[in-house]
Formats: sequence, structure tokens, C-alpha cells
Amino acid sequence: MQYLAPDMASTMKSLSKLRPEPGFVLHEVPVPAIGPTDVLIKVEKVGVCGTDFHIYSWDKWAQNRIKPPLVIGHEFMGTVVEVGAAVTLVKPGDRVSAEGHIADLTCVLCRTGQAHICEHVKIIGVDRDGAFAEYIAMPEYNVWKLDPAIPDEFAAIFDPLGNAVHTVMAAGVSTKSVVITGVGSIGLMAIPVARAAGAASVYAIDVNPAKLELAKRLGADEIFDARTPGLVDEIKRRTNGDGVEVLLEMSGSGSAIDMGLQMVRNGGTAALLGIPSDNVNINLAERIIFKGLTVLGINGRKMFETWYQTQALVKSGRVDLRPIITHVLPFHEFDRAFELMRSGEAAKIVLDLKGDLAK
Amino acid sequence: MQYLAPDMASTMKSLSKLRPEPGFVLHEVPVPAIGPTDVLIKVEKVGVCGTDFHIYSWDKWAQNRIKPPLVIGHEFMGTVVEVGAAVTLVKPGDRVSAEGHIADLTCVLCRTGQAHICEHVKIIGVDRDGAFAEYIAMPEYNVWKLDPAIPDEFAAIFDPLGNAVHTVMAAGVSTKSVVITGVGSIGLMAIPVARAAGAASVYAIDVNPAKLELAKRLGADEIFDARTPGLVDEIKRRTNGDGVEVLLEMSGSGSAIDMGLQMVRNGGTAALLGIPSDNVNINLAERIIFKGLTVLGINGRKMFETWYQTQALVKSGRVDLRPIITHVLPFHEFDRAFELMRSGEAAKIVLDLKGDLAK
Amino acid sequence: MQYLAPDMASTMKSLSKLRPEPGFVLHEVPVPAIGPTDVLIKVEKVGVCGTDFHIYSWDKWAQNRIKPPLVIGHEFMGTVVEVGAAVTLVKPGDRVSAEGHIADLTCVLCRTGQAHICEHVKIIGVDRDGAFAEYIAMPEYNVWKLDPAIPDEFAAIFDPLGNAVHTVMAAGVSTKSVVITGVGSIGLMAIPVARAAGAASVYAIDVNPAKLELAKRLGADEIFDARTPGLVDEIKRRTNGDGVEVLLEMSGSGSAIDMGLQMVRNGGTAALLGIPSDNVNINLAERIIFKGLTVLGINGRKMFETWYQTQALVKSGRVDLRPIITHVLPFHEFDRAFELMRSGEAAKIVLDLKGDLAK
Amino acid sequence: MQYLAPDMASTMKSLSKLRPEPGFVLHEVPVPAIGPTDVLIKVEKVGVCGTDFHIYSWDKWAQNRIKPPLVIGHEFMGTVVEVGAAVTLVKPGDRVSAEGHIADLTCVLCRTGQAHICEHVKIIGVDRDGAFAEYIAMPEYNVWKLDPAIPDEFAAIFDPLGNAVHTVMAAGVSTKSVVITGVGSIGLMAIPVARAAGAASVYAIDVNPAKLELAKRLGADEIFDARTPGLVDEIKRRTNGDGVEVLLEMSGSGSAIDMGLQMVRNGGTAALLGIPSDNVNINLAERIIFKGLTVLGINGRKMFETWYQTQALVKSGRVDLRPIITHVLPFHEFDRAFELMRSGEAAKIVLDLKGDLAK
Repeated sequence: MQYLAPDMASTMKSLSKLRPEPGFVLHEVPVPAIGPTDVLIKVEKVGVCGTDFHIYSWDKWAQNRIKPPLVIGHEFMGTVVEVGAAVTLVKPGDRVSAEGHIADLTCVLCRTGQAHICEHVKIIGVDRDGAFAEYIAMPEYNVWKLDPAIPDEFAAIFDPLGNAVHTVMAAGVSTKSVVITGVGSIGLMAIPVARAAGAASVYAIDVNPAKLELAKRLGADEIFDARTPGLVDEIKRRTNGDGVEVLLEMSGSGSAIDMGLQMVRNGGTAALLGIPSDNVNINLAERIIFKGLTVLGINGRKMFETWYQTQALVKSGRVDLRPIITHVLPFHEFDRAFELMRSGEAAKIVLDLKGDLAK
Repeated sequence: MQYLAPDMASTMKSLSKLRPEPGFVLHEVPVPAIGPTDVLIKVEKVGVCGTDFHIYSWDKWAQNRIKPPLVIGHEFMGTVVEVGAAVTLVKPGDRVSAEGHIADLTCVLCRTGQAHICEHVKIIGVDRDGAFAEYIAMPEYNVWKLDPAIPDEFAAIFDPLGNAVHTVMAAGVSTKSVVITGVGSIGLMAIPVARAAGAASVYAIDVNPAKLELAKRLGADEIFDARTPGLVDEIKRRTNGDGVEVLLEMSGSGSAIDMGLQMVRNGGTAALLGIPSDNVNINLAERIIFKGLTVLGINGRKMFETWYQTQALVKSGRVDLRPIITHVLPFHEFDRAFELMRSGEAAKIVLDLKGDLAK
Repeated sequence: MQYLAPDMASTMKSLSKLRPEPGFVLHEVPVPAIGPTDVLIKVEKVGVCGTDFHIYSWDKWAQNRIKPPLVIGHEFMGTVVEVGAAVTLVKPGDRVSAEGHIADLTCVLCRTGQAHICEHVKIIGVDRDGAFAEYIAMPEYNVWKLDPAIPDEFAAIFDPLGNAVHTVMAAGVSTKSVVITGVGSIGLMAIPVARAAGAASVYAIDVNPAKLELAKRLGADEIFDARTPGLVDEIKRRTNGDGVEVLLEMSGSGSAIDMGLQMVRNGGTAALLGIPSDNVNINLAERIIFKGLTVLGINGRKMFETWYQTQALVKSGRVDLRPIITHVLPFHEFDRAFELMRSGEAAKIVLDLKGDLAK
Repeated sequence: MQYLAPDMASTMKSLSKLRPEPGFVLHEVPVPAIGPTDVLIKVEKVGVCGTDFHIYSWDKWAQNRIKPPLVIGHEFMGTVVEVGAAVTLVKPGDRVSAEGHIADLTCVLCRTGQAHICEHVKIIGVDRDGAFAEYIAMPEYNVWKLDPAIPDEFAAIFDPLGNAVHTVMAAGVSTKSVVITGVGSIGLMAIPVARAAGAASVYAIDVNPAKLELAKRLGADEIFDARTPGLVDEIKRRTNGDGVEVLLEMSGSGSAIDMGLQMVRNGGTAALLGIPSDNVNINLAERIIFKGLTVLGINGRKMFETWYQTQALVKSGRVDLRPIITHVLPFHEFDRAFELMRSGEAAKIVLDLKGDLAK
């Protein structure tokens, strides 16, 4: 069954990992076919994620998880060009982004509003072909229709912004004091999100001075170098000796997790989004049990509660992403993008395909 | 047992209801004695509440509830001058406000963190002598130590601000759309509180144009005259046809409640703070049951979770009460205060006792 | 497009409302066609609901809502005989029940786990053809695969049992005291459900002595005639003078709602499932606001959290429905079923189609 | 200030740790004096806890924490014999137990309903003199009036039963599948509590066959030796391949924690009550973050929500503690009690002071 419009080319340019080695290549692949409940999207803007960088660098995680050949990328927006026979949610011409976690929709988690943690989830650009290409096929279930008020650049990074929103909303920050450990791009996004969601104070901690400066511009009440001696006490002093009510852990660093947990007051909440690469050695008794903490593992974004919340925050102007998008580059400059990520110069990079890949 | 300091006068000036008739008189009464777990507070600033106006006017509610003679008033701040033998929370010289709902502290509600809805609660200035006097005796349990960063005027109205905070926090507004029906002084306060607590949009509805203007200045995204034809549809248009996620009902008007419930989308939350004077005729099936609404009865403020939240909002500067406090008058001008309330000119009036009642 | 198996008849027997008048007729209609995401189910057992009785009697509600001709019925179980091309959840031969609320799956409620209160819901047997027929077509999304341990009779009434489970779970009854007002079939089901879900005590109230006797057999700790003078005080005496923590309102009667709300202690929860036919006059101030109650409108069942909970309760044996299913009749005795309902003799009636409608 | 009744002896027998070495001695100490908000209780029955055994054995934890001389013991019930001048909650003659965590009642946690995790908590029998004596002085805030329907033996162990109830209620088990890792006395209590609170299935895991047998008698659906190969898969097989919804961790063993977390399905809840003696090495990414788990640190019991819940469960007969109380011994046989604990023969031992310590 072939759903492609007759005037469409049958192949397309893609950024792909072709062999088990560092780097990506611009590579011609077939335009994906769609089934009855799928949607074909012409990709216009994409966001570059740390995960893409891991795959680019071909580190240990990538070597274990990625099976080349693979079109990479999972943060994107574009326009619907074709829909399967059973699709009702969108139509050609609709401007969309999409949830990149493709769930099975049949398990208990999917059937109870928790598809984001489906055990059989396939992530685009990781487990199946992704969004760094002229076209991508997505199940209609995953497609998110964009509000006209949302600019393309912001729409392209709703995926990581959604991580930040899900973390903040799961923790609950209204009227509360908040520490964010790790201000990579998601940690940075969490700052305006936490402010907009009602945090009374936001303390940002990292080791990168430029990122901390950006954190300040994005609304952090105070910024701290993670290596400052006595930092736990410093944070307690600012919170009446008690510690903060909420920790948003976005570094994945074992020592940051331990420090962050010490900063949370008894009865507080710690939401863990950062992924440690190794086991973490924790004093469970002192850090979690005696304190009566609530620790939340955070994965992805809720479908689609988080997407609605993200839209509300961006559309209302409560969250402004402009300071975070440090670079918008033409798509073919992807090598430069990864170089900017490696150097730590960039916060968030958006690549523009529109007009850049004309044949 | 007499705990009064030897140099203190044994009588004091108070604003009292002496007979079952309209009006108040400045009246000399004994300085209250304190027991072992009580605190004596020299009152410095007080807030004038609609309840005080009901008692002043001697309306039906007041006639049923109030037993003269009574010192009135329940919103206040001042300085501790004396503490009972078993008091540990505060000491003379501490600057304080206090929760005016005096609970029995022995019932199941008090013993499970819900003292604010204790069935045996006594309200100062309503069920027992109140705060419009040179001194007030309070159980230490009710006393709230003020942070030095909180100005006196704001501290004097933590009680009604706490009503607003409790309503907003019970409903939960982070990233949500909110309608407020009724922008009397608590409804007005609810606007910056809802914004600070994370609301993505706040629509204020009332019939008083001056209050609506003030609502706009305080941060309402849009203001509406409640009598506008088609207002329910108007609100739905602004919320993608769905209706708002949260209703904060602060009018006590039956028709506003009915209208407000229609504005809430299925699955939303309605927090009811306004007190209807009569029964309300509700289409429970259409307004609440089929919609799957959550309706919350709101009474008072949580002890002392709401007080901490209120402090966090004011201290962090997220909530600025200055536009709401339209008048600060010397205490002896209380008749003018009630006249300003009657005319609808005032939003919140604070009376200043310090230096005004020198003997 | 015709998906019917070649050996299937093209028409089938159905119980239908053909004209706007009382009664139903056994009527030959076309076997429904299915689309790519639909499932065709051979119906085996059905439950008779009060709603069916309203349509049978052709009362005011039915006259306003029902557009003949219509196949009625919404409680059922059967076997899948055909699936659309895009169906992945089930296959022919699967034993299934189904959620009768057909949601649009595109609105904000459907996309955030609240499809049960979708504003565009169509109910089978009410808004579109129903289950009292040899076959029914259902969207695969609505189909519920039955665990082999669940007997047919129980499976046929998962819909109303799900109402009871959703009400109980929304209220939260673990370790709590519970009043159930109204023990029609769903109110009766709520008794073993509340017990199994952890209620420490269950008080059942109704005016029908036979139903109250059945309530007792099903595990109610005590049963009361709703007309007993001083019943509110009676319930308070049994709960240390405080009142119950949870009201499950299943009568739809205005006076029962008022009485039930009086029985709930301050800070308690009232879950309203019963549908009042008229407006209800409520003292909102005394019954809900001052008490700080949480009032929950309950509609349908959560898809599919409630279904999983229902399955867990039945499969584990924690809930035994046998005492509630007072009659299992051959399908063609439907008139007798409605007569049993009219007389109040029956609690729950299941009709058996298997073998009864052989051509 | 001396509040003792004139006819009371001024000294009393106590079980004390007098020197930093193993063992306890029966030792004469002064009857404690009470302040204005304290209550003096004549102790009648006490429960022996693992903590008492640690102090008896003088292990590393005890050496670090305990400062002799100290009267030990924290689980008890008795009769009020004297109350301070400001006490309102109880009166002489009242039959009581008491919460052994003495909080400061002034910090943010105490003032917001979380006194059980007050940072300045003092535990009786650990940080200050305890209950293994003829009399104990307690703040009235901590005293719990016993319902006449609660037998003395059960009342004496409301403290550990409360640990079990708090853990179960924090996790939320209604209609859910539950694994309990570790069935020491609190783990055993958690079984009937989880059943009564609505768990659909309870799987108990330990290494002690006798305790597992007792677990079965107390209502565990299935019991497992923790060393069974493939036990994680075994549990998944029983839960449709998904894993359980709730883990109640009551062993404090690092390997049990790791195994238990593997048994929880994505999106599930793990409540940690067992105290690991060392750091635990956790794969946070796989065990908590990707799974989207909620991990709850559990400490003590909520004051006094847990006490009310505990009372409701015991009084209603939903929880029967008789199989857990394996021994009731006269108080002077305390050495035998600790020997029974050491050997693993006993589940819960209650010591009886009444009539045993006559002078």
C-alpha cells in the first residue's frame, strides 16, 4: 500500500548514522511509507539534543543502544503532507510537532494515561528512524497540532521543554523554594518554567560559569558554582535553615544528586530527570528515609498533559525561550552545531531545513 | 492568676459592639488576662473586613451570630508584650500576626492538620473578643511570627490574603486557565496570588467597574462585567472552546456560582469561598456530575501551611499588595472607614493604632 | 468496503426502540459494518440497566434524548468475530467487553486521560446503536479483553460495576467510614467494592427494605431506612460525633443528597454519581463551604484505569457479584426483565443471547 | 514546681541502660516530674522493638546514638495519673498510648502537619527516658486516648503498627498488587494492614521460613524465599508481566531494595521504611528514573492521622494482630524476651508491668 502523493520524490536527504563510528553523514534514504493510522510530516526545523551528540560522538551508551543505519533526531516541527486512511486528528497542511516516544498503546500503562513510560516505547532517532530528514512518518497518536501563536523555533524544541515542564509539574513548585542541579539546556528551560509555574525562589547550581550566567538571565534568583565549599549550608541559610522544598535534578551526576538531596528539607520532593551513567552510592537512610522525602523518577513527557501545559506556558508568554536558543543554523551546518555543543558554547541549537535542502 | 506586667494599665480602648444595633463605639474594657499557653499582643495595625461591616451594619447575619458586648476585628498585627508560663513559640518583643480561628486542638480535625475546619472553632471579633483594641490575648498556637521583610500593612491583612492563598492553592492553578467570580478584596487578592502561583491566564468577573479596573492593574489578563450577554461563551472562546480549568468563586452570589460552573471545562475544579446568604438552586447533573467536576468548599486558611505560603509569596515579591490597600487611616477614623466600604470606594482599608490611641 | 466474513448473515436480531412510544421490539437490522479501527463483536450476555428501563418506559428523559430507531443496551460481553485493518489490540476469537462511552479521542480531555468525560461522547444504546443485538461494532479503543478468570455474567456488567469502582476510587475509602445513599444496583455494587477498597465501615441508606437486606448481605456494616427520624445524628453517633469521612451518593434524590452531605464530617469527601432529575436546592454555605468538603461529580468510568481496578477486584475474589445478579434470563424474555425491574424485585438482571437467538 | 500527687512514691523501677555495654538492668530512678503541658502516665503494657534489641546488644548504631544512663522503650500503653496545669486533652484515669516522637512543635514541619519528620525530634527510649518503667512523662500533644474497644496488647504496639499503617497509606494500595520485602514484625503487620486497606494481592518476601509461614497466616496471597532464583520474573508472571504496583520495603537490605525496585512496574510506587545500615549502590537510571517510579521515604507515623487510621483498622476488626503477638511476658522476664528476639522465635513480644512490679 503506497500512500505517497504522486508528485513527491521517493527519496529524501537525511542525517544518518551509517556505520558504528563517530559522526553523521547527509544520506539519501527512501521517503518513509505510512500505514492507515500514520501521518507523513515534512520537517522544517529541528532541535539538537545531547542524545544526538552522544550518538554523533559514538560513546559507550550509543555503541550499546544504536543499531546503524539510522536516521537520527527527535526534536522537530513541520507540516503534514499525507495522512493514512484512518487518521482523524490532523490533515495535510497542518503545522505540527510530535511526541517522539512511540508507545505500544495496548499495555496497562498506555491504557491508563501513562504512555510516556510504556515498557515497549520506541524513541525516534534512537530506536527507529528519526526527524533529521526531509520527511518523517509518525503515528497520528503522537502528532501535536501547533497553535499558530507558537513560533517555529519554540515548536521545534517542545520535546526538551516538555521534559522540563513534566519535571516541574510532577514536583509541584507553587509558592515553593527550588534548587536546580545542572543547567544544561533542559535545566536552563526548567528555570523560567519553574518561575512561571509559581516557584517562590529558584537556585541554580552548575560548574559552567556561562550556563550559570544564562541561568541568571532566565530568572534564577541566585546561581552557585557546585564546587563552592559549604554550599549545602549556604542553601539552608537562604531557606530559614530548613532547606528547599523541591529539588529538580538535571545533571545526572552522582555527587550532584547527593548534594541536592542534602539541600531538600524534610518532607520535600526531589524530581530526578538527569540520567546517571553509572550506579549511584546513596545513604538512603539519611538522604531519603529519615527525611520522609518523595523522590520522583522522571522520564519523557506526559501524553499529552505535558504538551498542553507547555503550550499554555509558551503561548501565554509566561515562558520565553529566546535566551536559550543560542543558535539557529542551516541544516547542512550540522557539524558546526555538534562542534558548538562539544565546546559548551551553545545552550540550544535549532537547525533549519526549510529552503536549505532544496534539490 | 494575673500575668500583666506591673507597669501596664488594666484597661484599654476597644472598638466594640455594645448593644444589638448598628454602629460601633470606642469603649474602655479590661486588658485581657492570659493563661499559661496564651500570648498578649499590643495591636498596631488592623484590617477592616466585610465581616466587620456586616456587624457594624447589624444585618440579619450579624443579628443571629453576634452576642454583644463584643470587641470586634480579626485582621491585625502587633508586638508581643506578655507570654504565659508554658509558651515556647514567641517572646515579648516579637512582631506577630495571628490566625483568628481558635480551634479546640483536641478533635480529629485539629489532630490531623485541619484545625481550620474544627467544628468548635471560635473566631475572634465574632465569637469572642477581637483585635480592634489596644491589646488582644491569643493562644500561642495561633500566633504567627512575622518575617522582618514583611511590611506592617501587609502583615495586618495576612488573614484575608490567606483566604485567597488557601483558595488558589487548594484549586491548584499552575499552567492553568482561571476565572475569578467576584473581585471584592479577597477576589482582588486572588489575582496576583493566582498569577504568582502559576496560572497561565486569569479572567476576572464582577459588576463593579472600579473593582474590575483594579483587577486589571493587579494582573488579570481580562476583565468582564458579569452582566455581559453570552459571557459563558465568551470565556469558552478564549479557552479553545473548552472552558477554564479552574473557577475561584469569591462572590457568594447564586447566579455567579451557576455562571462560573458553566465556564469550567469538564474535569475542572471549582473552589468556593464566597458565602451565599441563601440556598442555591443548582442543576447538579449538568453543572457538576456529568462534567466530572471537583468542587472544593473553602473555609479560612490552613494552619499554618497557608501562612507559610502567604509569607513566601509576599516576601519573594511575587505578590504585591500595595494596589489593594487603598486606604490607611488612623484608628479613630473607623466611621470613615465603614463609610468608604459602604460606598464601594475602598478595596482594603488598614487602620493604624500606633500613636493614635495615646492616653 | 465490506469487512464481514463471507459466511456471516447480513442481518441480525436486535432489541430496538422503533417508534417514540413505550416498549421494545425484537427487530431484524443489518449487521453493522466496521471501519479500519473498529471491531465486530458477537454479543453473548448483556446487563439490563436503569437507563434501558427509562427508554423502555419512554419517560421524559428518554423522549428528549432518544432518536428512534435505535438498538438499545450498553452493558455486554461477547467474542470478537472481525477486526478492521488497523486494529492491533484484539483479534477474532478474543473474549471481550467494551466501554460504552465512545469518545472523540481528539479533544483535550481525551488527550489527557479523561476520555470518560469527553464533551463529544456518544453512548451506545443511547446516542447510537447498542449492544442488545447479535452483533455490535465498537472502536478498538473501547474494547476490553477479558481475563479468562472472569465469568461471563460478571463480565457483562463491568460497565455498572465500573461506575461503582470509579466512584469509590475517586472518593478514596481506605481506612475510612462511608455512607452510601441509594442502593439500587450500582449502590449495591459499591458496598463490596468499598469494603474491598479498604473502607473501615459502610453504612447503607435507602427506602427499599429488600434492597437494604441485600445491602447487608453484600457487606454493609449497618443499614438504615432513609426516613428514620434523626438519621443524621444516628450516623454521627456511630462515628464519634464527627460524621463519616466519605459519602457515596447513588440515589440522585435531592433530599438524600442534602441528608448525605449533613452526614459527612468537616473536611470529608462526597462523590456524586446519582443523577437528580431536577435542580437541587442546596445550602452551599452550611453543607459544603464551611465544612471544607470536597465534592466530586462522577460520570462513567475512567478509560481504562477503572477497568483494570474492576478486573483486579473481581479476579482476586475481593468482590463477589453473585448476590447482586438476581436473575439470568434468556434474551427473548426481555419483557419479563423489565417487569421485574418495574416491580423492584430484581437487583441486577443479565440476559443470555447465546443459543437463545438461533435462527 | 512539683506536680506529683502526695501519695505517689518518688522513685520507680525502670529498665535502663546504665553503662556503655550490652544488657539492661532493672533500676530505681526518680518518677519523672511534669511541666504545665505534660502528662504523667502509669505504664501497663509495653512492646519490645528491634530498636530496643539494638540498644540491648550495644551494636554500632547504639554506641553512636545512645547516651547512658537512659530508661529505654517506646511502645507502651497505660493510664494517666497526673496532668499539668495547662493540659486539656486528657485527665487522670484516661487510658492512653502515646506517640514516641517528641517534636519541637515550632518548626515549619510541625506547624504544617508533618511533626513526625520534625528535624529536632527526640525519641523516647532513644534520645530521652523511655517507657520501660512504672511511669513516663509525655507532652499532652503526644498522648493518644485509647478507644475502649482496643485491647491493651494491641494498644501497646500502636507505635510499630502505625509504622506499617503509615507506609501502606502513603503508598496507597486500594485495588493494587503489593510486594512486601522483609517480614519482621512491622513487615508482618503490613500484611493485614495492606489487605484491609484494599490491596488486591500481597506477596511477602523474606529469608526466614517461620516468618514467611506467619505472613501466610496473616493474609499474604503468596510467600517467597528472597533467595529463589528468578524471583523478579516470578513476581512479574503473577502480575501479567508488568510487575507490582506497590513495593513496601521493610527489610533495610540493599539487595532486597534492588530486587524490590525491579519488581515494581513502571509508574509504580516504592515506600521505603527499612533502614539500611550502610550506603546502597543503586542503578538510579534503570530502577527509578526510566521507570518513572515514585519513591517515598517513610519515617515514624503521621501525628495523628496515622493513629486514627490505625484505630479504625483495629476497632473495625479489619486488622487482627493476635497472630503477630507471639508472646506476652511479665515485665521482669525482659532478658527472656531479648533472647527470644535473638533466636528469631518471636514476632512481637509484649511485656506486662501491671501487677508485676508491685513494691
